[in-house]
Amino acid sequence: MSRNSVSMAVIRRMPKYYRYLNDLKKDGVSKISSRALADNMGLTASQVRQDFNCFGGFGQQGYGYNIDTLHSEIASIIGINRKHKAIIIGIGNIGRALINNFDFLQCGFSVVAAFDTDKAIVGKVLNKIPVLDIKDIDAFFAENPFEVAVLTLPKAYACKTAEHLVDIGVKGIWNFINVDLRIDETNIIVEDVHFADSLMTLCYRITE
Amino acid sequence: MSRNSVSMAVIRRMPKYYRYLNDLKKDGVSKISSRALADNMGLTASQVRQDFNCFGGFGQQGYGYNIDTLHSEIASIIGINRKHKAIIIGIGNIGRALINNFDFLQCGFSVVAAFDTDKAIVGKVLNKIPVLDIKDIDAFFAENPFEVAVLTLPKAYACKTAEHLVDIGVKGIWNFINVDLRIDETNIIVEDVHFADSLMTLCYRITE
Repeated sequence: MSRNSVSMAVIRRMPKYYRYLNDLKKDGVSKISSRALADNMGLTASQVRQDFNCFGGFGQQGYGYNIDTLHSEIASIIGINRKHKAIIIGIGNIGRALINNFDFLQCGFSVVAAFDTDKAIVGKVLNKIPVLDIKDIDAFFAENPFEVAVLTLPKAYACKTAEHLVDIGVKGIWNFINVDLRIDETNIIVEDVHFADSLMTLCYRITE
Repeated sequence: MSRNSVSMAVIRRMPKYYRYLNDLKKDGVSKISSRALADNMGLTASQVRQDFNCFGGFGQQGYGYNIDTLHSEIASIIGINRKHKAIIIGIGNIGRALINNFDFLQCGFSVVAAFDTDKAIVGKVLNKIPVLDIKDIDAFFAENPFEVAVLTLPKAYACKTAEHLVDIGVKGIWNFINVDLRIDETNIIVEDVHFADSLMTLCYRITE
């Protein structure tokens, strides 16, 4: 099966497998059956085998999976070893939280710069990441073509910024702004972090 | 169908419908067909009808949905009108970002207090929300029973804090810490915001 024909549901389970296998590795576990893996992930054993079969399968029936091998196979499927270049646009609270506390490398990205309009912060370096003037983004891209932009800027600038990123040829956007970027017809890939959807789901689940 | 037997996939689509209907309302649209709704949500018309049938259905075949009615029906299904009480534990960057910029009310919650251990911030008021000492959380709960705790504190304190919240009888946790809270066997409902899973999904999708 080609990468592009794998369903989004399967793709979205890959990080969860990876995270769980990470924990098992840390705990010194070396093998796991598809059934045990399934139980811990809230899936069925057959679903786990089907998921892995999308990528050629990584086990021998009845022998269980070798954790180290499976962990590195999934890392390579996700593309974690690629160190894609990313930039962050908007150094408010969320931008700062990501720069200071989030492990981008563990997710396959290296943050090469941050951008803002605020003269008070442009020119500074936060956690080894230079903060540049948003005006200079095209020149920066020409020298250091980045693949992903993390959007943590105010809503009002979201769509215009996203359109500009499409124009310069960025591959993906990690979007923290609770807004439809309206760039569906383009080739750019958008991954939204919708805080509101998550909290509303919790609201439903605690409402009797 | 009872609320508890609705699948998580359907539940997770409710906030997306709500968000989309919000946009339509703002744009002054008054009616929409299940097909148009489906197209805009990336679903099939029959899936949309099935989703709504879980809650009794809200339309007449061939007439389309009245946006105002559907919007308020979905708000009431999610429980947005309930104003559940919530508190925030941990006033780092993420905690501050939520307090200053996130519209809790729009998701059905009213934030009644924030908690931290840092003497420099305890006693202050951020965006009308008092910051209290985490030591006083039990006394606060006795006076103001809150239903949900938002966890934005450092990883090291996550599991202990979650266990304590289970003990005092909190209904739900909105978890921003990238850690398994290990409270699965309890009745508390946990909704995780996994930044890493989202970014790894983007990593997969831009990797060729």
